[in-house]
Amino acid sequence: MTDEERMFECIPNFSEGRRPEVLEALRRAAEVPGVRVLGLDADPDHNRAVMTLVGPRGSLLTSVFATIRQALETIDLTRHEGVHPRMGAVDVVPFVPLQGSSEAEAIEMARELGRRVGDELQVPVYFYELAATRPERRNLADVRRGQFEALSVRMAADPPDCGPPEPHPTAGAVAIGARRPLIAFNVYLNTGSMAVARRVAKAVRGSSGGLVGVKALAMDTRNHGRVQVSMNLVDYRTTPLPRALELVREEARQLGVLVVQTELVGFMPFDAVEDAMRYYLQLPGFSRHRVLEVAIKESGKEWGDRE
Amino acid sequence: MTDEERMFECIPNFSEGRRPEVLEALRRAAEVPGVRVLGLDADPDHNRAVMTLVGPRGSLLTSVFATIRQALETIDLTRHEGVHPRMGAVDVVPFVPLQGSSEAEAIEMARELGRRVGDELQVPVYFYELAATRPERRNLADVRRGQFEALSVRMAADPPDCGPPEPHPTAGAVAIGARRPLIAFNVYLNTGSMAVARRVAKAVRGSSGGLVGVKALAMDTRNHGRVQVSMNLVDYRTTPLPRALELVREEARQLGVLVVQTELVGFMPFDAVEDAMRYYLQLPGFSRHRVLEVAIKESGKEWGDRE
Repeated sequence: MTDEERMFECIPNFSEGRRPEVLEALRRAAEVPGVRVLGLDADPDHNRAVMTLVGPRGSLLTSVFATIRQALETIDLTRHEGVHPRMGAVDVVPFVPLQGSSEAEAIEMARELGRRVGDELQVPVYFYELAATRPERRNLADVRRGQFEALSVRMAADPPDCGPPEPHPTAGAVAIGARRPLIAFNVYLNTGSMAVARRVAKAVRGSSGGLVGVKALAMDTRNHGRVQVSMNLVDYRTTPLPRALELVREEARQLGVLVVQTELVGFMPFDAVEDAMRYYLQLPGFSRHRVLEVAIKESGKEWGDRE
Repeated sequence: MTDEERMFECIPNFSEGRRPEVLEALRRAAEVPGVRVLGLDADPDHNRAVMTLVGPRGSLLTSVFATIRQALETIDLTRHEGVHPRMGAVDVVPFVPLQGSSEAEAIEMARELGRRVGDELQVPVYFYELAATRPERRNLADVRRGQFEALSVRMAADPPDCGPPEPHPTAGAVAIGARRPLIAFNVYLNTGSMAVARRVAKAVRGSSGGLVGVKALAMDTRNHGRVQVSMNLVDYRTTPLPRALELVREEARQLGVLVVQTELVGFMPFDAVEDAMRYYLQLPGFSRHRVLEVAIKESGKEWGDRE
């Protein structure tokens, strides 16, 4: 398998979810030959956008670097408000190996991007998760603790992996890392009470007695009169989406609250669709190969096309 | 769009679900260049197999005819036992238009196959559903009433559309038709009581007060100590799979019985997967385009490949 065939996903998270012209400029900056911009999910309450890029190493690094440079010109964290925790204009940049590529390669990409962002753009970089240089930086929530507002104090005690030892004045710092695929999934509850959202998030989150492989935060989305439990399922084959959602539902119900609807941020791997279909339909025989359109496409690769 | 690009699905149902060598011969007979044998689902309790074929008009007709001819050599209905109603060795042969093809064309294919089966194989043919020649033959259950055992008497009063006026001695008669795509879905209940299965089937079936677009039969699968509610969802966009399953669940629960698991016969269109994911995850934003692997494939068709 050549370098051009080994594909990676990169999902830069920007602290901007409201200004369409800024988002459009980020998307344009990412459009590099060979790289596919699968999506750009903007959330006005979070004031944050999640871009999903797929490509081979070289062109993907070019694309991500260009969109980070573009973000620095238009996003000013000193004026940023939003309910999602953040420490940078470009807040977090994970690389994920796809089929054919390895975690080691994704870590290398994170390190290379980090050096360029530190040197050329003068933004301090913390490596996190699989790319972390010390154990206490593996967990993104720890890396981001105190957020942008506390960054000067924190950086003095805990210098970054790359770039200047002080926060960038408008862009803060960025966490760059490598990780396995995850599912970012938000659940809306029919209450405006953040106390309820916090109790539910605490109950499902692995770090406080809930499900292993689930990270959860309560988020206030006051405009809609509904609070949100925002989850990352970081090991969705071991702790699948239905188990997390049904636990949220049950913990909310105990507090007299219902799930109104849910929301997917970015993309969901087909494995997770299979898990959900098997679970809810009690259909152990389900797989992507039982989906008519998929089966037709797949059969085309085999003897069906010998005509 | 050329003739070779307009694709159809054909799903012949054979009254054989036990002898592997017979099933294998049916599959081999269907293998005609240009036709894809997507699957062959055999059910030993039903003693029935469902083959799913996809191809353009000409080669698909060749393939289906060959497999029907093969079935006549190996399946003898005078010795057939199984819980699924049937009137023929090849019991029912529906054609379904796929993207790019029309119902009118599917009806024409059914008629052409019917004439050949009647003339060349001397098996009587009843056209059903969209291909029916009179209203009382639209519904397959009506066409098949009395099954193989009552066929002589019935045919005397109600002659077939093609072929001889008497049943084929070992192959009975065949229903050939055209229809829209459907989902064939079986639900197993944790009881051996056929009375329960019948009450549940009656409650969900459209013809007896249940859901429009749902056909349902109680089936005895004694070997497993579990009865089955076997459903066809004939208009799954209007009456989606989750609604049918949850009604089965609720009607069974009223009788103190639980759903143990379910089973898909053949394939499920992607539309139905989307409906189920939206329903159970309360995720209105879900679509196939949010599945990572699908999004990557689709993006390859656009500017991502301009490299």
